[in-house]
Amino acid sequence: MKNRKNNAEQDRAAAFIAGVAEKISESYRTVGGFNHNDGSNLPRESEILQILSRIFELVFPGYGEHEVHSQATLTFSAGNLAAEVYVHLSDAIGRAFQCASGNTPCSCGGRAAEATEKLLAAIPEIRRVMMLDVQAAYDGDPAAKSFDEIILSYPCIKAIAINRIAHMLYQEKVPLIPRMMGEYAHRITAIDIHPGAVLGEGIFIDHGTGVVIGETASIGSGVKIYQGVTLGALSFPKDGEGKIIKGAKRHPTIEDNVTIYAGATILGNVIIGHDSVIGGNVWLTQSVPPETRITIAPPQLTIGKKHKSAKKA
Amino acid sequence: MKNRKNNAEQDRAAAFIAGVAEKISESYRTVGGFNHNDGSNLPRESEILQILSRIFELVFPGYGEHEVHSQATLTFSAGNLAAEVYVHLSDAIGRAFQCASGNTPCSCGGRAAEATEKLLAAIPEIRRVMMLDVQAAYDGDPAAKSFDEIILSYPCIKAIAINRIAHMLYQEKVPLIPRMMGEYAHRITAIDIHPGAVLGEGIFIDHGTGVVIGETASIGSGVKIYQGVTLGALSFPKDGEGKIIKGAKRHPTIEDNVTIYAGATILGNVIIGHDSVIGGNVWLTQSVPPETRITIAPPQLTIGKKHKSAKKA
Amino acid sequence: MKNRKNNAEQDRAAAFIAGVAEKISESYRTVGGFNHNDGSNLPRESEILQILSRIFELVFPGYGEHEVHSQATLTFSAGNLAAEVYVHLSDAIGRAFQCASGNTPCSCGGRAAEATEKLLAAIPEIRRVMMLDVQAAYDGDPAAKSFDEIILSYPCIKAIAINRIAHMLYQEKVPLIPRMMGEYAHRITAIDIHPGAVLGEGIFIDHGTGVVIGETASIGSGVKIYQGVTLGALSFPKDGEGKIIKGAKRHPTIEDNVTIYAGATILGNVIIGHDSVIGGNVWLTQSVPPETRITIAPPQLTIGKKHKSAKKA
Repeated sequence: MKNRKNNAEQDRAAAFIAGVAEKISESYRTVGGFNHNDGSNLPRESEILQILSRIFELVFPGYGEHEVHSQATLTFSAGNLAAEVYVHLSDAIGRAFQCASGNTPCSCGGRAAEATEKLLAAIPEIRRVMMLDVQAAYDGDPAAKSFDEIILSYPCIKAIAINRIAHMLYQEKVPLIPRMMGEYAHRITAIDIHPGAVLGEGIFIDHGTGVVIGETASIGSGVKIYQGVTLGALSFPKDGEGKIIKGAKRHPTIEDNVTIYAGATILGNVIIGHDSVIGGNVWLTQSVPPETRITIAPPQLTIGKKHKSAKKA
Repeated sequence: MKNRKNNAEQDRAAAFIAGVAEKISESYRTVGGFNHNDGSNLPRESEILQILSRIFELVFPGYGEHEVHSQATLTFSAGNLAAEVYVHLSDAIGRAFQCASGNTPCSCGGRAAEATEKLLAAIPEIRRVMMLDVQAAYDGDPAAKSFDEIILSYPCIKAIAINRIAHMLYQEKVPLIPRMMGEYAHRITAIDIHPGAVLGEGIFIDHGTGVVIGETASIGSGVKIYQGVTLGALSFPKDGEGKIIKGAKRHPTIEDNVTIYAGATILGNVIIGHDSVIGGNVWLTQSVPPETRITIAPPQLTIGKKHKSAKKA
Repeated sequence: MKNRKNNAEQDRAAAFIAGVAEKISESYRTVGGFNHNDGSNLPRESEILQILSRIFELVFPGYGEHEVHSQATLTFSAGNLAAEVYVHLSDAIGRAFQCASGNTPCSCGGRAAEATEKLLAAIPEIRRVMMLDVQAAYDGDPAAKSFDEIILSYPCIKAIAINRIAHMLYQEKVPLIPRMMGEYAHRITAIDIHPGAVLGEGIFIDHGTGVVIGETASIGSGVKIYQGVTLGALSFPKDGEGKIIKGAKRHPTIEDNVTIYAGATILGNVIIGHDSVIGGNVWLTQSVPPETRITIAPPQLTIGKKHKSAKKA
């Protein structure tokens, strides 16, 4: 179709485009919804993902896109990656703080450096804990063949690593960036963990599709979660004007060594005592003591003969 | 392993590859399943995603991959993006029409320009409505901190924006491309909205993983939907030969201000009256009047003590 | 924020980075969790995805990223793609075998060539079966408009194609790579099929989000599966030390022409007889004979009037 339009058609199309561009510009003025570098200059998704990829490389070197030549060069690549993360992340965080302050003067640069340094300093600890997560996956999944397989391919490793990273920034009250990281993890794993959620050590999330873990949820160590589990809110506390209060504790606390099977839903600010087992599809809005086993009666089945007429022709 | 094979091995491998290529080519001739530029020349996924990225940039400038230098240059970037979308989208749509016409002569170019112009002309209106969607997310989610956070990271914004764009092309009966757009949204959000579905204004889909909204579903304004909700078909009308009739109305109509909680399933051509609340995991195949509240009894729980022997060693 | 730091600040930041890099390096030595090219030199995700993209192009030429100029050049592109896959895949498989052998001498190169050749030789058969999968999607989905639409956009086509490819390598006991392929499919489709699972011909998975099909599951021909279906394990056989036995048969066998509706869960090493229909949300842990229809009573609904006070302000 290209290059086959005659001049009159081209003129008409050009006029159409000019008219549309004007109307779209008018829409920017009237309803807003744009970002520009001279204004809020928000963190960009591409830059956050690049930073995240480098942090992941610091956590599990050689398992991602960056090649590690030999064990002997690991110190150099760690230093280089840490320096890159420092520069780019502190810049992005500074801009995020600046936006959130409505572009009034703020000590955004200093706070950004502080948050960045806290995250970088935490990487050895994050590594220690992630190796326990890998071990938990190996112990918990009969299909797991090796640690390498788990680090290379298990979605829960990516989702949990990103939560541990994003949660550090969430604690430093960094705007925007933790949620961008968490939603990236959600996109590539279908596991939706809000960066506000606190995870213990040695967590395994099997399959993971559809898992939702809310902002104020807290999960102990040795917890095992299957696909489709929701740790959600039952209701949203509201202020005098009927507006939802942001940030109030409204999600479950799961104590150590709890197992939650597929499709279970636990709602509200309740406590699931340690070593409990929550069965598949359980719907729970109350606290339970330690070492509790909760199941639902499986739904009553109606088992019959398929009608011949219903058979595929 | 590379470059270490001896000559005899290399010759054997080359002969093997030649043999395989011949058998694969034969398979193209016998069972089909290929596309080529001199033939149907189907729209390519990469080109459709690039076009979609530009349209998204028109809708929310500066929130995606393209940088906006300053507010003053927004008009220029809008004009430039609109021109690019015009050229590339009308080309892709023209080829999609051409394929669907079995490569017989068709006024594909004219119809493609018309569909492209309808979409571009609708962008100000899409922007107005999307800002209401952003507001709905802010009002409905206690974890939402700012409009920027929602536009930058919420999967429902991408899924809904892509539905609004794809639905314009679906209405113009553009083949292939609307569904390619919809399935791209499905891939990055796990929210599966068929481009045929009609959405009202100020829609919020929280978390969203596993949501399925069928081709002939219709959703009013102010509707709030949680993860795992299905608006599906109960059965498929069939013709005299037992073949499924394509396109018949078979999905629910959801009226204004309905809330549908996680895991609810609504099937068939039914009407959910305005201001109704459908509880989590409800399974519904009938219409309900306005302002109805439907819940299921939570499954009966069996709560017991975990056997010591079942404890983790 | 960039370039605005004074010298003292820069020195402090540099010292901080050096200190962090040292601590991170120490963590590599103490807890491990890294890969390097002089050591295990694991297959990289980027190389596996590039190989997978080329295999997909061999299966459905012109539907992916590689353009096919004309039908006449298909033989050349097939030969070229097959040669590229041969070189890169046999290299990656060789390294995967080498890793798994603990870097002791192994006939890894020979086994890698053998596995690669088996896969390439199977492509005509994979193509034949995939065309039946496309037909099954067309017959089973009223929203499907054409074969092109299905190949271009349906997530089940990608998930099933990748399973058929990965399963060939799984059968050859190739480590790591089959699971990397399967988890890539999981990421882009939210359909989680372990590469160990065996699929028959003419399989359709509609929507697919949340589907989980375990390692030792076996699915016959003409099977139709909806979103959220789990074919999982009920319990994990353990050895004398209480450790999970890897690889034991623990997932369902689904015979020909079975339909499994959304949200159904079938657990354990059970057999679902041919031509059976498993209703939505059924929870099943037992075998059923052929031509069985199983449903659950829909949950009892409590239908009431919404309280005015609960209305949106």
